[in-house]
Amino acid sequence: MKQSASAWAPASLSNLGPGFDILGIAIDAWGDKIEAVLTDRPGISISYAANSAWTGTTDPAQNTAGVAASKTLEVLDYGGGVEIIISKNIAPGSGVGSSASSAVAAAWAVNAIFGLPLTKKDLVDAVLDGETIASGSKHGDNVIPSLFGGSVIVSASDPSQYRHIHVKDDLYITIILPAVQILTRAARAMLPETVTFSRAIRHASSLAMLVDALKDGDWRAFGRFIMEDEIIEPVRGKLLSCFDSIREAALTAGAYGCALSGSGPAMFAVSENENVAESIRKAMFEACDAAGIESTSIVTTPDNKGVREWDQPEIA
Amino acid sequence: MKQSASAWAPASLSNLGPGFDILGIAIDAWGDKIEAVLTDRPGISISYAANSAWTGTTDPAQNTAGVAASKTLEVLDYGGGVEIIISKNIAPGSGVGSSASSAVAAAWAVNAIFGLPLTKKDLVDAVLDGETIASGSKHGDNVIPSLFGGSVIVSASDPSQYRHIHVKDDLYITIILPAVQILTRAARAMLPETVTFSRAIRHASSLAMLVDALKDGDWRAFGRFIMEDEIIEPVRGKLLSCFDSIREAALTAGAYGCALSGSGPAMFAVSENENVAESIRKAMFEACDAAGIESTSIVTTPDNKGVREWDQPEIA
Repeated sequence: MKQSASAWAPASLSNLGPGFDILGIAIDAWGDKIEAVLTDRPGISISYAANSAWTGTTDPAQNTAGVAASKTLEVLDYGGGVEIIISKNIAPGSGVGSSASSAVAAAWAVNAIFGLPLTKKDLVDAVLDGETIASGSKHGDNVIPSLFGGSVIVSASDPSQYRHIHVKDDLYITIILPAVQILTRAARAMLPETVTFSRAIRHASSLAMLVDALKDGDWRAFGRFIMEDEIIEPVRGKLLSCFDSIREAALTAGAYGCALSGSGPAMFAVSENENVAESIRKAMFEACDAAGIESTSIVTTPDNKGVREWDQPEIA
Repeated sequence: MKQSASAWAPASLSNLGPGFDILGIAIDAWGDKIEAVLTDRPGISISYAANSAWTGTTDPAQNTAGVAASKTLEVLDYGGGVEIIISKNIAPGSGVGSSASSAVAAAWAVNAIFGLPLTKKDLVDAVLDGETIASGSKHGDNVIPSLFGGSVIVSASDPSQYRHIHVKDDLYITIILPAVQILTRAARAMLPETVTFSRAIRHASSLAMLVDALKDGDWRAFGRFIMEDEIIEPVRGKLLSCFDSIREAALTAGAYGCALSGSGPAMFAVSENENVAESIRKAMFEACDAAGIESTSIVTTPDNKGVREWDQPEIA
């Protein structure tokens, strides 16, 4: 047993087009880092590192990292306590799995203290419980990709059931984070209670096509099908005033497709050439700017590794 | 140009669990054979071969083979006529793509007369038009697998859009055709007009899992997910009085999963061992027999070739 260990978990895109609540993908862009330190007193305590770009609640029962760490200690059957020190690099509420990344990094850091006796599979329930604190219900489409890397299909009837997909690494993903806030609970409340049978079948067929394209690395088709969601995005797109202009800019610049991530405001566009991806980034940024909204934008690729121990020395 | 040519197209399973209207697979069990012969007068005429196990309408505008052959002549821009001689080996209305097989074989036989100038892709619309005569609306989940072989995901919004999946050949499929009739139109009329949002999402997630399992050749998971359809099968299963007892018998005998094909009455069960598949066949047959219903049952495997020219000499 070590005295302390650190872990880093990648951000993730979720709700990919018709993959609402089902399909997520880890990205090599941002990630939260968490250090876990054994303490004398039982239970979890939380603090934020001096270089943390964001801070949040330090109540361990209300913090996704706190809950995930606590559940991991339970699985390890360890009665002692742990202090969690969070370096939060993913903007909370941005739509790219900030709370999920913290939950996953916390679970893995605790596991690392004990020499990694638990597999990633062993930690699925712990990180799902952590994520539940953030969204109010159990969703796996950020937390499970952040844990395993690559893309994951999560069962909508039982989020602890999933299938992992290794993503071919020739996919370029351009992401924009408009500086507006969309509350996940509000975005959920907007969703319809019923859909027509024919729409439900069309939705399922788009998702089937999307999964097939993702497994084949057919990015042109992948891009088309992330835009074939007739149920969720037509509602949620309205939450972001510049949604239409950003999408149009991305497509004009050569993106195969462009959609919201999570409940937004994050949007992502796909292509398979780094220069095109950079042109898409500029176009999306300018469209957002023209709407009077500041943003952060980035070109990235999938992360197929998922959470890992962080053993680099800190830069002072 | 030849004077005549023959083609054979495989039967197919469709509506696989949550893959209603979306997912089909060609099987190496039965198939309709069609001979096309050039005639002096323009247009299509239809007859049935002496050894045809079934016969049907000879009105070319009402016969799936007639319509598909006619559309193929249009695509070929040939003004002359063709006689279609049908050897129908797949029981009509059985739920394993009988009308689709005839449409596909007819299109390919006509194409073969001219030396196969058209690709399978070129014939998608022709065979879809043929199938429309049988079901009253455009459905691709039998006709496109029968054309290409393997499994096909068909878009529910545009059946001419599809993605082809090569099926690993270690899958055993046990099929039973109970000797009762289920009318596709009646089965369609039973379907609900709306579904709850959460059920639509669960349906889509089961289909996503199913496609992933199918591509991986993970037959245990494939079997589980063909049974995770909460929308269509709970309604349609009631059309077949012995549905529950046949499924239970199949699962008890070792099937990974068991579901209706098409709108029934065909049912299929999956496993990955020939002996187990044969035990499943006996169990399904006995369950059907115990319900007082005669049946045909068979153990088969996927057909990854699809329609092909039939050049064997006829057995007198």
